[in-house]
Amino acid sequence: MASQALIKDFEELLGKENVFSSEADRMSYSYDSAVLPPVMPSLVIRPTTREQLSACVKKLYENGIPMTVRGSGTNLSGGTIPDKSDTVVILTTGLNRILEINTNDLYAVVEPGVITAQFAAAVEKQGLFYPPDPGSQAVSTLAGNIAENAGGLRGLKYGVTKDYVMGVEFIDATGATVKSGSRTVKCVTGYNLAGLITQSEGTLGIISEAVLKLVPPPKATRACMAVFADMQDAADAVAGIIAAHVVPCTLEFLDNNTIIRVDDYTKAGLPREAGAILLIEVDGHPAQVEDDAAAVEKVLKENKATAVHIPKDAAEKFKLWEARRAALPVLARCRPTTVLEDATVPRSQIPAMVKAVNDIAAKYRLEVGTFGHAGDGNLHPTFLCDKRDKDEFSRVEAAIDEMFDVAIKLKGTLSGEHGIGTAKAKWMEKETSRGTILFSQRLRRALDPKGLLNSTKLVGI
Amino acid sequence: MASQALIKDFEELLGKENVFSSEADRMSYSYDSAVLPPVMPSLVIRPTTREQLSACVKKLYENGIPMTVRGSGTNLSGGTIPDKSDTVVILTTGLNRILEINTNDLYAVVEPGVITAQFAAAVEKQGLFYPPDPGSQAVSTLAGNIAENAGGLRGLKYGVTKDYVMGVEFIDATGATVKSGSRTVKCVTGYNLAGLITQSEGTLGIISEAVLKLVPPPKATRACMAVFADMQDAADAVAGIIAAHVVPCTLEFLDNNTIIRVDDYTKAGLPREAGAILLIEVDGHPAQVEDDAAAVEKVLKENKATAVHIPKDAAEKFKLWEARRAALPVLARCRPTTVLEDATVPRSQIPAMVKAVNDIAAKYRLEVGTFGHAGDGNLHPTFLCDKRDKDEFSRVEAAIDEMFDVAIKLKGTLSGEHGIGTAKAKWMEKETSRGTILFSQRLRRALDPKGLLNSTKLVGI
Repeated sequence: MASQALIKDFEELLGKENVFSSEADRMSYSYDSAVLPPVMPSLVIRPTTREQLSACVKKLYENGIPMTVRGSGTNLSGGTIPDKSDTVVILTTGLNRILEINTNDLYAVVEPGVITAQFAAAVEKQGLFYPPDPGSQAVSTLAGNIAENAGGLRGLKYGVTKDYVMGVEFIDATGATVKSGSRTVKCVTGYNLAGLITQSEGTLGIISEAVLKLVPPPKATRACMAVFADMQDAADAVAGIIAAHVVPCTLEFLDNNTIIRVDDYTKAGLPREAGAILLIEVDGHPAQVEDDAAAVEKVLKENKATAVHIPKDAAEKFKLWEARRAALPVLARCRPTTVLEDATVPRSQIPAMVKAVNDIAAKYRLEVGTFGHAGDGNLHPTFLCDKRDKDEFSRVEAAIDEMFDVAIKLKGTLSGEHGIGTAKAKWMEKETSRGTILFSQRLRRALDPKGLLNSTKLVGI
Repeated sequence: MASQALIKDFEELLGKENVFSSEADRMSYSYDSAVLPPVMPSLVIRPTTREQLSACVKKLYENGIPMTVRGSGTNLSGGTIPDKSDTVVILTTGLNRILEINTNDLYAVVEPGVITAQFAAAVEKQGLFYPPDPGSQAVSTLAGNIAENAGGLRGLKYGVTKDYVMGVEFIDATGATVKSGSRTVKCVTGYNLAGLITQSEGTLGIISEAVLKLVPPPKATRACMAVFADMQDAADAVAGIIAAHVVPCTLEFLDNNTIIRVDDYTKAGLPREAGAILLIEVDGHPAQVEDDAAAVEKVLKENKATAVHIPKDAAEKFKLWEARRAALPVLARCRPTTVLEDATVPRSQIPAMVKAVNDIAAKYRLEVGTFGHAGDGNLHPTFLCDKRDKDEFSRVEAAIDEMFDVAIKLKGTLSGEHGIGTAKAKWMEKETSRGTILFSQRLRRALDPKGLLNSTKLVGI
């Protein structure tokens, strides 16, 4: 636990209600959504103004105390687990105001702790659209999304969080305020530090404000579910849709194991015998939606879809999409431990990757369910196991190792949207190069000279 | 000039035909498109493979010799002017192959020296679309575009160069190879170094390969020219178009002075009495284009457009667009020196900014022509002067100083797309913060420990 003197200092700065030192409180912030051992922080603080945030960082920097910034803790790679027992967790959830939604200039200015879905709803009320929709959107924070460059179901057409970050203000390791980007569509003033802080997993600074791009909403949408006897047909259909120059806003898939598990639980009436299903949604101008839907249907037929189901109303569509969103929680119920992976390949390589995942699972005698974002090649092979079973868990680790090798061979990446954190740090050099690790470490040490910001994450310090 | 020993080393490495040491050759690489004094480099080298590029950087690093990387030298802020008399210029134009255009996965892999327009044409041949179209596209290189984060006429709808950089490989100051990003839509493996190298103006590394995003081309387009008695009406129309949720691919304007100058020269039949004209193009699905064109026409009428001219064929449209593209060269012919500025404001602030530019020009007794990208608030106020006239040129400098103050007050930026280089370095802190400059300098010194890469550019070293 932190010293009484430090606790008192923070209580004076932030008010007693924003300083948490009890064991129960600290325990609550010792883990996140990754399958990794918890680490108890020494203290948890919650600044409510950016001046407080800057003052907190300055004080911790001056005292050489490690800090881990945390939004809602939905991180899947350990990015919000404290590094050491003397780490102070800085919560951004006290900085949760939407400062501006500008409908003329199509941007919003937000504090770091605004909840993603609440922001998207506020934007929708003003007649605009904020597309990034990570799976955790109901609880995740916008700065958490930025720090992890969160993805979601709309990546193929609308891009990911980084595509919506126009500008940021952040507090660096020393407590100084850094600004980058702008409220303008174009801005090349100085280094693209807004781009650098995006995806930096809390290791280079703590976001105090962000300017986010908004777009006009699509005027129409159309959804369908396509059923395939096997994965290869479904993958061919995905390639065919892109080749037809249709860019769906959603193009998701579930494999047979996931379908059965989800159907068992949700009773959504999914086709349990299917090798794979695709959930497809196109959006845009009503006439374009008509044409795109027709083009998609043609491609589906040509690629041996055994059925194409068009939801008859919004409620039925919602039910199908909920089945997709339920994939992870449902799989997670099956066994004590769920290792959700995030390997991503160019979309044409999906069949090769899915086959490799299944072969690897068979080789190591493991149960795997695979679902994910077919349109952007972002797979979520999910290994169901029990980490207390040391033999089984070591087979899971070996399987993941092999899976990453395949992803990289297929010109893919370790992580499409979940981040590196501590969970995947050891594989980074395989995908990049020794030079990349050294470059990243030099960069980091210069920007965090005392090594206080989330020091065990990414490339270490 | 470089030592004979160094010249010989490079001749052995690259072949005599790729090492340029004569005074005439070196003179050719002493300046770029910015109004700044030339600096003769000591040597110019042109590697033709990435292994050569890496070996060149290693040799220069080991010998502590400064280097400036250069594509076609179209830089408007001095980014490709050598720093000192012992600088070696590294040309990327020998690395000019398109390595892959992947129509299934919608990306291309290119070497740094590929010419932008040639690349766009090659992509078009494969039925796809690469949107970034900086004014210099006929000669500029793709890596030059990335290093400057070049914009263009399509920024509003399609974004700028950074929105198309999926991955890069670059050689850092020490000659090591760094990789970031991927051929996949989503990739969060490590720091977003692809984002950091974008817009870094040759100060953090030399791009050896890039993966660029491609999109399906629009199925239809529609263009028009709208004439306004004054700028305020034109600006109101721009705001009205966005408020109608139409996002044109092009939304350009020319002010009265620019119209007259361009018409004098091109005889394009522009409305010489107009306070401003807007050039507007919408694209997308044919039905959407119909609707958008109708919505635009309605907004134009409501905002006092005195005429709306729809080109009767592609040739007529081309002529109008050429008039816009001629704005800079035409203005540049009027007086010995053309100072092209790049202040950018949120689009709703365009009328305020244009008024301020004209007031400032009047105050300092200067001729200014303003044109630019109305849709994204990116103005190009162009001061016509003679830099040999010291009094006049000092008035230009004072005017620019004042103009940037206004841009920043209007929540805009110093530079939308031309970069900082040496031309705008002194204003950077005004827009950002002391903390930003210090953070950027720490970052840079760590990544270029001997201070060899374009050291006088951006925040200095």
